[in-house]
Amino acid sequence: MNVAVVGATGYGSGELVRILNRHPHVTIRSLVSSSQAGERLVAVFPHLAHLDQTLEEWDADRLAEQVDAVFFAAPAGVSSRQMPPLVERGVVAIDLAGDFRLEPEEYQQWYGKEAPAATWLERAQYGLSEWNAAAIAEADIIANPGCYPTAALLALLPLVQAGALDQSSIMVDGKSGISGAGRGLKLSSLYSEVEGNVFPYKAGVHQHTPEMERFLQMWGTGDDWRVLFTPQIVPMSRGILITAYSRLRAGWTAQDLRDRWRAAYEEAPFVRLLEEGRWPRTKEVQGSNYCDLQLHVDDRTGYVVVAAAIDNLVKGAAGQAVQNLNIRMGWPETAGLVADPLFP
Amino acid sequence: MNVAVVGATGYGSGELVRILNRHPHVTIRSLVSSSQAGERLVAVFPHLAHLDQTLEEWDADRLAEQVDAVFFAAPAGVSSRQMPPLVERGVVAIDLAGDFRLEPEEYQQWYGKEAPAATWLERAQYGLSEWNAAAIAEADIIANPGCYPTAALLALLPLVQAGALDQSSIMVDGKSGISGAGRGLKLSSLYSEVEGNVFPYKAGVHQHTPEMERFLQMWGTGDDWRVLFTPQIVPMSRGILITAYSRLRAGWTAQDLRDRWRAAYEEAPFVRLLEEGRWPRTKEVQGSNYCDLQLHVDDRTGYVVVAAAIDNLVKGAAGQAVQNLNIRMGWPETAGLVADPLFP
Amino acid sequence: MNVAVVGATGYGSGELVRILNRHPHVTIRSLVSSSQAGERLVAVFPHLAHLDQTLEEWDADRLAEQVDAVFFAAPAGVSSRQMPPLVERGVVAIDLAGDFRLEPEEYQQWYGKEAPAATWLERAQYGLSEWNAAAIAEADIIANPGCYPTAALLALLPLVQAGALDQSSIMVDGKSGISGAGRGLKLSSLYSEVEGNVFPYKAGVHQHTPEMERFLQMWGTGDDWRVLFTPQIVPMSRGILITAYSRLRAGWTAQDLRDRWRAAYEEAPFVRLLEEGRWPRTKEVQGSNYCDLQLHVDDRTGYVVVAAAIDNLVKGAAGQAVQNLNIRMGWPETAGLVADPLFP
Amino acid sequence: MNVAVVGATGYGSGELVRILNRHPHVTIRSLVSSSQAGERLVAVFPHLAHLDQTLEEWDADRLAEQVDAVFFAAPAGVSSRQMPPLVERGVVAIDLAGDFRLEPEEYQQWYGKEAPAATWLERAQYGLSEWNAAAIAEADIIANPGCYPTAALLALLPLVQAGALDQSSIMVDGKSGISGAGRGLKLSSLYSEVEGNVFPYKAGVHQHTPEMERFLQMWGTGDDWRVLFTPQIVPMSRGILITAYSRLRAGWTAQDLRDRWRAAYEEAPFVRLLEEGRWPRTKEVQGSNYCDLQLHVDDRTGYVVVAAAIDNLVKGAAGQAVQNLNIRMGWPETAGLVADPLFP
Repeated sequence: MNVAVVGATGYGSGELVRILNRHPHVTIRSLVSSSQAGERLVAVFPHLAHLDQTLEEWDADRLAEQVDAVFFAAPAGVSSRQMPPLVERGVVAIDLAGDFRLEPEEYQQWYGKEAPAATWLERAQYGLSEWNAAAIAEADIIANPGCYPTAALLALLPLVQAGALDQSSIMVDGKSGISGAGRGLKLSSLYSEVEGNVFPYKAGVHQHTPEMERFLQMWGTGDDWRVLFTPQIVPMSRGILITAYSRLRAGWTAQDLRDRWRAAYEEAPFVRLLEEGRWPRTKEVQGSNYCDLQLHVDDRTGYVVVAAAIDNLVKGAAGQAVQNLNIRMGWPETAGLVADPLFP
Repeated sequence: MNVAVVGATGYGSGELVRILNRHPHVTIRSLVSSSQAGERLVAVFPHLAHLDQTLEEWDADRLAEQVDAVFFAAPAGVSSRQMPPLVERGVVAIDLAGDFRLEPEEYQQWYGKEAPAATWLERAQYGLSEWNAAAIAEADIIANPGCYPTAALLALLPLVQAGALDQSSIMVDGKSGISGAGRGLKLSSLYSEVEGNVFPYKAGVHQHTPEMERFLQMWGTGDDWRVLFTPQIVPMSRGILITAYSRLRAGWTAQDLRDRWRAAYEEAPFVRLLEEGRWPRTKEVQGSNYCDLQLHVDDRTGYVVVAAAIDNLVKGAAGQAVQNLNIRMGWPETAGLVADPLFP
Repeated sequence: MNVAVVGATGYGSGELVRILNRHPHVTIRSLVSSSQAGERLVAVFPHLAHLDQTLEEWDADRLAEQVDAVFFAAPAGVSSRQMPPLVERGVVAIDLAGDFRLEPEEYQQWYGKEAPAATWLERAQYGLSEWNAAAIAEADIIANPGCYPTAALLALLPLVQAGALDQSSIMVDGKSGISGAGRGLKLSSLYSEVEGNVFPYKAGVHQHTPEMERFLQMWGTGDDWRVLFTPQIVPMSRGILITAYSRLRAGWTAQDLRDRWRAAYEEAPFVRLLEEGRWPRTKEVQGSNYCDLQLHVDDRTGYVVVAAAIDNLVKGAAGQAVQNLNIRMGWPETAGLVADPLFP
Repeated sequence: MNVAVVGATGYGSGELVRILNRHPHVTIRSLVSSSQAGERLVAVFPHLAHLDQTLEEWDADRLAEQVDAVFFAAPAGVSSRQMPPLVERGVVAIDLAGDFRLEPEEYQQWYGKEAPAATWLERAQYGLSEWNAAAIAEADIIANPGCYPTAALLALLPLVQAGALDQSSIMVDGKSGISGAGRGLKLSSLYSEVEGNVFPYKAGVHQHTPEMERFLQMWGTGDDWRVLFTPQIVPMSRGILITAYSRLRAGWTAQDLRDRWRAAYEEAPFVRLLEEGRWPRTKEVQGSNYCDLQLHVDDRTGYVVVAAAIDNLVKGAAGQAVQNLNIRMGWPETAGLVADPLFP
């Protein structure tokens, strides 16, 4: 099957190429970049010097003829503009940006601009692979989740669904490597600014907040879940650790919560429930599609702490996108995604 | 004034030497190390190659004659054993370990062994400089605070004292550089294990938990403050960022909280209240005695997020210890501590 | 085919497991560790939490029955002691330590102890895959090259063989990530000692010096090649960059040298000759078996600078070991080694 | 004495402010930035949040009235344009760019553009403090050395002057933290591009090459010193390590070379000759004005390896600039520069 990657110069795209390049059922037919069309791939990604490919202009007609699926790794607002003609002609679209994740009003409120794709939203399915496989398998458009929501939802959904958490607010404290900020030139992404530095940003106002709330609501029980999300940059390239805090309802034990996790992820090849005493570490999922989980029930305060680690560029972006393609095509969910984590 | 540093081979001691070496009123008369007595300082701290000093054996009589103050940077349990004969002879003792910070029962419960210094505890004062100066100025023994509690208490105490926080639990999410784990040889301190890695440890069971609770209780209002503390290692040498979450009482605004901070730290030379929109960053206090603060009131959830950044080895250890000596001796609080942060 | 890994707790072994685990023709039948026998693999390598395997005692008889090839990733001196009974019974042995790389006198001189395996040396072949494939294909014992020599020899051998370099000394300036120092507990491997730090060690006396000289002699022209090797630690986990300097014989141009490289590596799937203007970067080979090469002829001084980058744990250890097994078994040289570099 | 810093938004300027701010004889009267005039200092350097200063427009008349010395930390070509009117009015100018370091023809050849300051060159003195103090003490313009040349020349000059090195080429292999590339927005300065990465750049064509050659010629013996300089980026913010290789003349021993170093730097407060067996490490000079030196004579090849470590932003830029001001004003050479290295 032939696929294309649109917006092929960012870190997420580099990962898509790396993964798809070894996928048993896929050939990368086209790499599209509006800004660097005509450049050879090696000029953008020297680590792929052994691949001989050239970036191409966006051309909907050509793509519709050449490929059966397109990954959009372009900035917010681009995919929803470019996607319709392809989808109309039967091409499966997987969007790594946020264009199809929120209701229009929420989008407007949190992104601060008009929702780009209101009319197409109903044809899109949220691509949290472990929670929406049936819908993904039929979707025209797959809205690949944000990196932070992937980790937070995988950790919290089974507990919310079980009714274990108090109907109050959930604190989500996120720690991310800087590759999540993209490959754009920003002062705050310079090595000398990030090294040795940990800092919060957009506390309470990050656009992944409503994404978490929407799907806690949709797939959990109860109806008014509120998340206070504080993202933080830590000095590393890859990886996200989510630490989330919630008051626990009376009677719930750590064992109960673990049982819910176990039930939810029994068949999930990429979720690892760590044994007691072992906390998730971002480096232990590096370069892989795994999500590692652990929790602690704190009897002194009546709260539970849950932690989840993913590689933000794999399970948090390119890896989950490929997992979703696998689901959509009826291939084994792990096709192209079997690499073990790279450690150290 | 002559001083000594006991346990002079760890990172905290290196910082004590660096700071005291430039202190206008102090001479380092003796560096004591039981494990490396006889070694030259350069063998332990090559960055101090220009200093010609030799580590010495512990000898209470010699020290009592030579010095007027002793910094104990030895492992837990050592200071409380070695200190009494010196204090009896009028030497001021500043302890960087945890021996004098907790009530015996708490110590027993959280450190998992008998409290080392029960009878001497009443002669010790907790050395959180900004909150206990009057008592420190008279103390025989100064119990220098833990690194995490320093940051957490400076951020939370004014709000707790004001009655702004709901009488419920406070979540303290800590992120620390690995130098906080000391210079001992542990697998988890190796470069290849820490680089690219973020991970929680001792969630809910870290011994700094009761230290935070004790002083929130002592200097706050209300009487049953509970802290759920989750420390995490981030891939850097120095620095601590504390992010704390608490439900806010009705009616309190961000402006109110900032006013409390301003009132509390008006005269404090080392606490910087950052202007709105600017969050603390560990690298912006690197090598200095500053503590940077910021907060966000989240109307959607009714919670407040507060963040504090310090250099764990300076304000979280050696720097605050020198600040406390300054207070004890009646010198300007900033003596020897005026260095600006090292950035980048 | 069943294989075993002996010494299965170091970083190199972790990489062997990661690579062999995805190898199409290989099953890992046994992981042997004398120090941690009985431990589950996850206790040693938490990143492999999804594998359910247990470390075993060394037992030559059992191994000889179970497996057809053994990778020895144990400390120097162990493999040459344990290997003979297995080799006698037809097991292929691949040694990642230095026991079989040098003549006994050289070993004695540079390792400072008796050569461990004098009598077995003639059954061993040096496993520099690109230069010794015919012999490797028949070898009983494959002496996998050191990490620095792999990079240095791949860069220099075509030029030495061509007679392009002056019969004088070659300076090899090596830069390595700290994983090359192993997973042992050493002060100089602690995060806080390595971060922000670059430093030489063992300049002129490193045991990889005679290894480079021996094979420059063996496969080059001329007969008295001398290498002045200065290794240096740089603050990263993985990767080696070699920068080598040699006076050039009259008449040789950059084009000539590149032609020699091209001729030597035309069929080599893992050597990438970078286009002019692009220097090797360690991160561009991370996690892969590639070796990237570039050179500059400096007309002002009459010297050539050559640079080579590898992942020290892959092409410099586990990857090349698997490449050698592939050659030995007549499998495609790239079997199990097709992963693209992980970037960023 | 009042001073100004021009080009006050880069890393070097940040260090100038940090150092001058604690200088006993200096007040920073003006911070000039053409691009960010009107901004508060905290907006550019949040780590200096406790300083209340505002960046100003360039105004030669105002500066000439307000200050007695100006530090130019602006990009190449700016200082030589702005400086003359100030120097005419008796202001001491210290230039951290390269405008006054080379003869016009060399400048043209290596910088690829016309030499900016030909007519003013004779009023400038090269500010390698340890080698040119007498001239610096009288200079109108002090051309502060480049970061790499500072380390290379301090290491090599005593040996060249002694006639110990063969009249052939010297290889200088440089390793620098990325802060040396400045605070500008470049892809190659992003955290995710630098982390885990070591790579050469501008091998043989870097503009610090003629600077090294010029002063080896000027202050050494013999007259045709050629340097092959290969700079490399290593993943850290600060620090430079220079490893230099040269053939040794017959008869010279390590002891002889050390004696020359000792003689040259006996009175130099910032050059530390490390004891045998201890190699320079960049982190051991971090934040300080020290230059650490070590060497190894390799009898097998007849070469010497010398290594020097400095903090590129201190001894390699701002620190040496202040040292030069001290020399120029007749103050103690160490005024404002006594801080010990920050470790870890």
